[in-house]
Amino acid sequence: MSLQFLKAHTRLRSASGILSNLQRNSALVKTWTCRESKRERETFANKAQLKAFFCTTSHTCSAQSWGSKKPKRSVQLRVATDFIMSNPEIETQLAPLRERVQEQGNLVRELKAKGAPELDVKKAVAELKIRKKVLEEKELALTPSVVSFDRAKMEDLLKRRFFYDQSFAIYGGITGQYDFGPMGCALKSNILALWRQFFSLEEQMLEVDCSILTPEPVLKASGHVERFADLMVKDVKTGECFRLDHLIKQALEKLSAAKDATAELRAECEDIIIKLDGLSKQELADVLAKYNIKSPLTGNDLTPPIEFNLMFATQIGPTGLVKGFLRPETAQGIFVNFKRLLEFNQGKLPFAVAQIGNSFRNEISPRSGLIRVREFTMAEIEHFCDPVHKDHPKFKRVANEKLTLYSACNQMDGKSAQALTIGEAVSSKLVANETLGYYMARIQQFLHAIGIKPECLRFRQHMGNEMAHYACDCWDAEILTSYGWVECVGCADRSAYDLGQHTAATGVRLVAEKRLAVPKTVEVTEIVPNKQALGKTFKKEAKAITDALTKLSLDDIKTVETQLAAGGQYKLRLPDGGTHELGTESIAVKHATKTVHVEEFIPSVVEPSFGIGRVMYALLEHSFQCREGDEQRCYFTLPPLVAPYKCSILPLSNNAEFQPYTQQLSSALTKAELSHKVDDSSGSIGRRYARTDEIAIPYGITVDFDTLKEPHTVTLRDRNTMKQVRIGLDVVVSVVKDLATTKLTWAQVLEQYPAFEQQEATK
Amino acid sequence: MSLQFLKAHTRLRSASGILSNLQRNSALVKTWTCRESKRERETFANKAQLKAFFCTTSHTCSAQSWGSKKPKRSVQLRVATDFIMSNPEIETQLAPLRERVQEQGNLVRELKAKGAPELDVKKAVAELKIRKKVLEEKELALTPSVVSFDRAKMEDLLKRRFFYDQSFAIYGGITGQYDFGPMGCALKSNILALWRQFFSLEEQMLEVDCSILTPEPVLKASGHVERFADLMVKDVKTGECFRLDHLIKQALEKLSAAKDATAELRAECEDIIIKLDGLSKQELADVLAKYNIKSPLTGNDLTPPIEFNLMFATQIGPTGLVKGFLRPETAQGIFVNFKRLLEFNQGKLPFAVAQIGNSFRNEISPRSGLIRVREFTMAEIEHFCDPVHKDHPKFKRVANEKLTLYSACNQMDGKSAQALTIGEAVSSKLVANETLGYYMARIQQFLHAIGIKPECLRFRQHMGNEMAHYACDCWDAEILTSYGWVECVGCADRSAYDLGQHTAATGVRLVAEKRLAVPKTVEVTEIVPNKQALGKTFKKEAKAITDALTKLSLDDIKTVETQLAAGGQYKLRLPDGGTHELGTESIAVKHATKTVHVEEFIPSVVEPSFGIGRVMYALLEHSFQCREGDEQRCYFTLPPLVAPYKCSILPLSNNAEFQPYTQQLSSALTKAELSHKVDDSSGSIGRRYARTDEIAIPYGITVDFDTLKEPHTVTLRDRNTMKQVRIGLDVVVSVVKDLATTKLTWAQVLEQYPAFEQQEATK
Repeated sequence: MSLQFLKAHTRLRSASGILSNLQRNSALVKTWTCRESKRERETFANKAQLKAFFCTTSHTCSAQSWGSKKPKRSVQLRVATDFIMSNPEIETQLAPLRERVQEQGNLVRELKAKGAPELDVKKAVAELKIRKKVLEEKELALTPSVVSFDRAKMEDLLKRRFFYDQSFAIYGGITGQYDFGPMGCALKSNILALWRQFFSLEEQMLEVDCSILTPEPVLKASGHVERFADLMVKDVKTGECFRLDHLIKQALEKLSAAKDATAELRAECEDIIIKLDGLSKQELADVLAKYNIKSPLTGNDLTPPIEFNLMFATQIGPTGLVKGFLRPETAQGIFVNFKRLLEFNQGKLPFAVAQIGNSFRNEISPRSGLIRVREFTMAEIEHFCDPVHKDHPKFKRVANEKLTLYSACNQMDGKSAQALTIGEAVSSKLVANETLGYYMARIQQFLHAIGIKPECLRFRQHMGNEMAHYACDCWDAEILTSYGWVECVGCADRSAYDLGQHTAATGVRLVAEKRLAVPKTVEVTEIVPNKQALGKTFKKEAKAITDALTKLSLDDIKTVETQLAAGGQYKLRLPDGGTHELGTESIAVKHATKTVHVEEFIPSVVEPSFGIGRVMYALLEHSFQCREGDEQRCYFTLPPLVAPYKCSILPLSNNAEFQPYTQQLSSALTKAELSHKVDDSSGSIGRRYARTDEIAIPYGITVDFDTLKEPHTVTLRDRNTMKQVRIGLDVVVSVVKDLATTKLTWAQVLEQYPAFEQQEATK
Repeated sequence: MSLQFLKAHTRLRSASGILSNLQRNSALVKTWTCRESKRERETFANKAQLKAFFCTTSHTCSAQSWGSKKPKRSVQLRVATDFIMSNPEIETQLAPLRERVQEQGNLVRELKAKGAPELDVKKAVAELKIRKKVLEEKELALTPSVVSFDRAKMEDLLKRRFFYDQSFAIYGGITGQYDFGPMGCALKSNILALWRQFFSLEEQMLEVDCSILTPEPVLKASGHVERFADLMVKDVKTGECFRLDHLIKQALEKLSAAKDATAELRAECEDIIIKLDGLSKQELADVLAKYNIKSPLTGNDLTPPIEFNLMFATQIGPTGLVKGFLRPETAQGIFVNFKRLLEFNQGKLPFAVAQIGNSFRNEISPRSGLIRVREFTMAEIEHFCDPVHKDHPKFKRVANEKLTLYSACNQMDGKSAQALTIGEAVSSKLVANETLGYYMARIQQFLHAIGIKPECLRFRQHMGNEMAHYACDCWDAEILTSYGWVECVGCADRSAYDLGQHTAATGVRLVAEKRLAVPKTVEVTEIVPNKQALGKTFKKEAKAITDALTKLSLDDIKTVETQLAAGGQYKLRLPDGGTHELGTESIAVKHATKTVHVEEFIPSVVEPSFGIGRVMYALLEHSFQCREGDEQRCYFTLPPLVAPYKCSILPLSNNAEFQPYTQQLSSALTKAELSHKVDDSSGSIGRRYARTDEIAIPYGITVDFDTLKEPHTVTLRDRNTMKQVRIGLDVVVSVVKDLATTKLTWAQVLEQYPAFEQQEATK
C-alpha cells in the first residue's frame, strides 16, 4: 500500500461528518425510508426507472425495504451514480455546485499552466477540494436510499454472534483493535483464500511472507519515518492526546450549535470545518487560538500542534540501540527482496509478487469501527514491469469489463463518475496503461465475486495534486457504506520510486536487465585504483577506500579527473565520515569503449493494495438484511463462496432416532471439506433457521421424520429465499458442495427437486 | 503455547553444544556416511536389522545415502529409539549412564517424599538434568546415521531458491528474522491449510483471529510480564548485550581449548558447561567472576547479570501511557474471549478454539536458523472441558495409534522412550486423560501426514519439576533434527490456570455452568447494602462502594458480620485505594437458603500448540536428499499435499509449436486449483527437471514432439523416483489432481500408463 494511500486513510471523511451534513440538509433530502408515507415516496419522479436499474442486481431491491414499519435510527443513503447522471430533477439541483467546482478546477489548471507560485496553487487546490466536497455531500443527500440500513442493528448482531468485537474487552478494551470471532475469522479466511485463488494462482504470482518488525533505515528510505504522521495536541496537565482535526471539528460544531451562536459565527465555523483537510499546521494552530479551544475532557489548555508518527516503535534486541517499527504496510518487505525474487523468476520481467499480512498504524484516536483501526490485514500485489512496456497479455480478456470511473478531470470539472469499459478507458489514455487497467478490472471482478454491490463501487482517480510524487497514475476502488465512500483498494502505478529509494539507501542495485535489440558501444569512464599503493599507504583502510571509489558517480569521476590533471589531490569521503586525499600515485581515471548487449533499468511497479478489514466491513453492510414483516429477524446474504459456514444440519427435534443421520451428514460434509454447523439445541426449527441466518449460513439441511423412512430424504433450505426442497440423503452433500462452489445455482436446485413447504411454518 | 513451553524454547540445547559433544565422542561414533569404507560399515553389527526397521518408512533408506563419495562437512546423526532399545551392543555402553540417572532420580523422589528443603530438591534436580543430558548425548552419538545429512548444503539450496532468508539483508539483515520467499511461503500456507482441515474442520473448532498488540495488564495476569525473561550481561563501555549462558559456554570452551589448559581446568570447564542450565543467577555471576570473563568482542568488563524480558514493548496510542507488548503467544487472545466463545457455543462444553497467527520474542542472541527466531507463526488450540470429564468421544478412533513416549518416569530412571498405543498409555494413566491422549495421537497423525519421519518423532513428558505450576500433564512432541531433539509441538493440560488468572484480574467470571443431576439447597450469606443511606452519605462514591461490596469474599463477609454484631464499623477498601467505614445504618448481612439447579465451574484447558516454523524446518531436513551419484543434484521429497507447487510444465524446447499446449495445460491446472510452474527457459530438459526437483515439485508434465500428434499425449514424471509415464493430454490434469490430493499413488499411475524413458537421458 502506498504511503499516499495510507495517508488517505487518515484523511477519510468521518462518518459523523457526512451524517451531520446530511442532517443539516435534511430538508432537501428525499429518502425512501420506512418513515415516509407512500404519498411522499410517490413524489419522487422516477420510481420505475430506479427500480429497473437496481433490479439488475440481486439483494438490492428486495421487497422488504419498501414496506417495513418501524423507524430506523441511522438511515443511510446509498448512491447509484448512473441513476444520478440520468435523473434530470436531481441534476438541476446539482448544476450550480458542479459549475462552482469546474470554475475552480479551471483556475487550478490555469495557475499550474502559467507556473504560478506553489502557495497560490495550493490555496486554489484547497478551495477546489472544498467545493468538491460540498458537491459530493449534496449528491449523496439527494440520492434515494436503495436499502434502508440500520447500522446500530447490524453492529448489535455482529457483536452478539461474535463476528468481531473490541479486543481485551474484559480489561476495558483498547480502541482501534478488534478480535475476529469464529464467524469473522472464517469470513476473513474465505475472502483471503478466494483472493489467493483469484490473484496469486490465476496470475502465477510469487507469494511471500515477510517480517513485521522492520528496522528504521528501511522505513527512512521509504519515506515513512519522515512523512507518515498526523497532527495532535495534548492536554498540558493530563497529557491526554487529541487528533487536531477531529478536535477542532468537534469544538466548532459545539460552538455553532450553542443557542446564542450568531448566524455569522455559524457560517464561520461551518466554513472552517469544510476547509479543515486543506489547512496547514500553522493555520490549524491559529484556529485553536482564535476560538480559544481547550481540552474537551478537562477544559485545560492544549499544547501547540505536534507531528505524531503513526508507526508503532519498539527496540529489536536487548541493547535498546536497534530501533524498529511495526510495518505500516506490507509492500516494503517485497521491495527489499526484489533481487532474490527477480532471480527466482530467472531474471525475467514482468512478474508479480503478492503478500498477505498484518500492518499497524498507531492512530491518535481510532474510530469508525473496522474502517480505521490500529492493526489490520492487507493483501498487496507488486507487479514489476519494464517501464516502457506496460501492456498486459491478458488485457483483452477484461477489455469489455465496465467500470464506474471518477476521473481526476471529472472531479475538477464538477462532473459525475462515468461508466466506461476498461478497454475504452485505456485506449483513450484515461487510465495510464494496460497493466493498471487490467488490475482495476480484476479488482472489480473480485469485489463483485465476494458480494460487493456493483452500484456501490467506483474507481476514483487521484487528482494531480493529491498524487504522491512517485505515482504516475492512481485509482482507488471506493465502496459506498454508511460511512460514505471508503477507499478499500488502492491501485497505483508507483513507477520506479521504491526500488530507487532502496537502491540509493543501500547501494544494492535493485535493477533488471534487458537484452538490447542491437548491441551498442558505450564509452566507459572509470577509476582504476592502484591497489598496491593504496594497501601500502592506507593498510586496513584500503578496502574501504576502493569500495568508496566504486560508488562514485560519473560527475564525481569527472571531478577526480580534473583535479588529478591539475596535479591536485581528490578528497574522498568514506561512509563512516572520514576523508582521505588521493593523488595520481594511487588512482587513475581510465576511458574505454565497451560493447554492451544488455541494458540495466529500474522496473516500474503497479500496486493493487487491499485493505481486507475495510472490504469485509463494506461486504457486511451490503449483505445485511431484515426479513419482510419481521424486523427482528436479520441476516446476511453473504455469497456461499465466502460465507463462514456453508451449511447447517438441523434435526427437527432432539429425537434420538435423528442422531445417526445428523452424524453421518456431518462426517460427509467434513470429508467434502464443507464447513458446517450442527444445531441440535432445543428451540423450534423456525427459531433455529433464524439463528443460522444470522450467521449467514446459506444452506440448511433438516433431518425430520421422513428422513427415517426409505428412501432416506432430507430437506434443503436456501437462506435468501427461505425456499426448501426435498432431496435424497445420498445426494444432498454433493449438491451443497456444488452450490458452495458456485457450480450450481439455487434456481437449478428448485427445478430438479420437489419443493417442500412445511417446516418454516412451525416457527 | 504455555509460558513454560516458550521458556523451554529458550533453554533448547544449542546446535553447537550437541555437535561439539558429538565431536568429542567421535572416536566412539560409528556413522554410515560416505566417508567410510564399505569394510568399516560392515563392522556395524546389525545392518540387516537396521535396514529392516528403516525401510518401513519411505525416503529414509534410499540407496544413494549409502554410496556417495565426497566428504560431508556437517554429518549429523539421526536416532531411532526403537533401534537403540533393541541393540544390545549399544545398550551395554549406555548401561552405566542409565544407572547414574536412575540413582539420582531416586534421590529426587526420596527428597520430595520426605519434604526436604526446596533448595536441596532443586540441587538434586539440577544434577538429575545433567546426568540425563550426558545420557542423551551419548545415545545420539552412538546411534547410526540413517541419512547422511549436510546442513550447509541444504541451507545453501534453501537460500539459493529463496525458500527463506534473512530479513532486510540488503540493509545488513536482522538476526532472528526471516522472510519466506515464494517456496517457503507456499509450503507454510499448505501446512497451515492442512492444519485447518485436519484440526479445525475435523473437530468443528471455533477459529478466531485476535490482536497482536496486547496491553500490559493482560500479560501481567498471565505471568509473562514477571516471568518471561532471560539473563544477560552488557559490555560496560559499548552496551553490547550477551545472553549469559551462551557467553559463559563460549568463554569456557575457549579456555579449555587453549594449548596451555591443564586437564583439571578442562574438566572443570566441561563440568560447568554441562551444569549451565541448572545454575542460579548468583552462581552464574560467580562463574563470570571466577574465570574473569570479559566481552568477547572488545575485552571490556561486563555488568552483573540482568533479567531481560523477552517481550517487545511499545506504546499504544499517542500519550505514551498505555504500555503494550507484542504477544508472546496467541493463547491469551482466546482466554480473554472465553465468555463470548462459550456463548457462541450456546453455553455447551466441551469445545475447542483454534488460532493461527504471529507471535514475537525479543531474543537476546537468536541463532539456530528457523528454530529460534524473533517473529514466528503459531497454531494453537485451546480445548475447554469440564475438569471432571476429560474423556473424548473420538478417542476410540485413535486408541491404536502407536506413539514413542518418553515418560517422566523413564527419564528419571535413565530408561529409553518406549513405543505404546495411546490407548494403553491412557488406560495405564501414563497419559493423564483421553482428551490429552486424543490430541497427542492427532498431532502425530498430522506430523506424519506432512512428511515428518516417524522414527524422528517422540513425545517427551515434562518432569514434575519442569512442569509449570498450572499444568497437570504436559507432553512435547519433539522432532529429531541436526540441532538435536527440538520441541515443535507442546501438548499440555493447563487445568483452570489461565481462566482463573483473568477472572481474578478483571472480576469477570470466566466460568461455565452445568446442570446438577439433583438440585441442591445451599446456604447463601450476602451483604445487603442500604442503597438509600449509602447514596445520602457517600453521594457519587456510593456506586463504587456497592460494587466493592459485591466483590467481598465469604471470609470478608463473616468479618463484616462479626464487626457489625459487636456494634463496630467495617472498613471497606476500594480499588482506588480509598477506605470507608460502614456501619449497620448502611449495610446488613443476610443469611438465606436457595435451591440451585446449576453449578458454576472454571473449565479445564487442554492445549496443543504448534511452532509452525520449527515444524517446517524439521520437515525440510527430513525431506532433503541428493541424487545417487550426483551430490550436486539435491532435492526435497516433500509430500504433494504440502509441496509448494504441485506440478511443473516443461516444453521440451522453445519450439513455438509447443506453446499452445503449454498454455492449455497451465489454464487447466489453474482451473483445477493446482499451483504449478511453467519452465520454458532454455537449458536441457534434464537440467530443468533438476531445477524443479530443487523446489520440491512432485510431478512434471513434459510437452514434446509426440504431444503434437494425435492422440495428444505428454509425459508425467515423478520427482522421487524420476520415473515417467506417457499419458493422454486430456487426462493428465485430473491424474495430477488425484495425485496431489492423495487419491491416487504413483505406483497406481505406473500400473495404468505405459512407462516412458527417453528424456531424463538427455541431461
